[in-house]
Amino acid sequence: MPKVYLAGPEVFLPNAREVGAAKQAICAAAGLQGLFPLDNEIGDLGGPEAAWRIYDGNVAMMRAADLLIANLTPFRGPSADAGTAFEVGFMRALGKPVFAYANVTHSYPERVRGWLGGALVPHAAATEDHHGLAIEDFGLKDNLMLEGAALSGAFLVEEVPAERLYSELGAFARCVAMAAERFKI
Amino acid sequence: MPKVYLAGPEVFLPNAREVGAAKQAICAAAGLQGLFPLDNEIGDLGGPEAAWRIYDGNVAMMRAADLLIANLTPFRGPSADAGTAFEVGFMRALGKPVFAYANVTHSYPERVRGWLGGALVPHAAATEDHHGLAIEDFGLKDNLMLEGAALSGAFLVEEVPAERLYSELGAFARCVAMAAERFKI
Repeated sequence: MPKVYLAGPEVFLPNAREVGAAKQAICAAAGLQGLFPLDNEIGDLGGPEAAWRIYDGNVAMMRAADLLIANLTPFRGPSADAGTAFEVGFMRALGKPVFAYANVTHSYPERVRGWLGGALVPHAAATEDHHGLAIEDFGLKDNLMLEGAALSGAFLVEEVPAERLYSELGAFARCVAMAAERFKI
Repeated sequence: MPKVYLAGPEVFLPNAREVGAAKQAICAAAGLQGLFPLDNEIGDLGGPEAAWRIYDGNVAMMRAADLLIANLTPFRGPSADAGTAFEVGFMRALGKPVFAYANVTHSYPERVRGWLGGALVPHAAATEDHHGLAIEDFGLKDNLMLEGAALSGAFLVEEVPAERLYSELGAFARCVAMAAERFKI
């Protein structure tokens, strides 16, 4: 059964394991095995030692996986979670397909202007932020490296209620269906 | 001469090519060849076609490089630029060492509380943000996947004046010196 690494910031939710189990159930119904980062056991370690154990576990899971489904919903800023972005790059370097989704539909410039706000982005048509850094605008939803990676699979977006921003699995389920089709299960 | 891929959000600066040239000069003085993303030619393309050309160019540069030096200075949020995070993952999957730097010295929880502010993080000891998502605290500066990757090289931090947040190259130069030592030039 093809293995899917399930990346995304939902690992930070209070009910992360429940969301992970729901993702794994959707995968299983489609004939895929979902590998969820929190399934790595880290024992009683704390501080950096726990972090390195998680890192090693996630890397091993990615090497074992056949593909990635990444939750690229904006996280504490206009772009995806940095850890998830790392994992998208990791999987593409290994030539494994990346299916991605985001539970918002705004373009990247809209996200930047909305997130940073009027005080930090001069006006609605601003092409630079408050540091004078260009606001990337290629007609995409996020950084072009993430979207370029998703050409190997899909990048699906959907608008969801705010309280389900990190837990809604509609677009995720569509990624699973596309991945199952690709792997001809 | 070992080749270094130079990743970071300085590609969005108005004087990005100047900063890139300065990085390449520091590399050259240490016996390393710096590969800067903006040296990829994309011609007159616009929109997504330009984005895919840049993506392909950056991927080819990473495959040609022997190591990565990544500017992980927080970008539009408490974490590193998503494109740079992607590149850190890409290079680690290929087993190439990652040297990283950030021009701020705050811990990740301090960054989150500072960035999101009092309305979105209830108080200075908050362990969750306004979405109820846990604020990762392993005594690190950024997401553990980025720091775990940098165990292969280094992660140097330095506090710099705000106006030099994305252009200061002091910590970068120290990364170059460490990389040159590693490659025994």
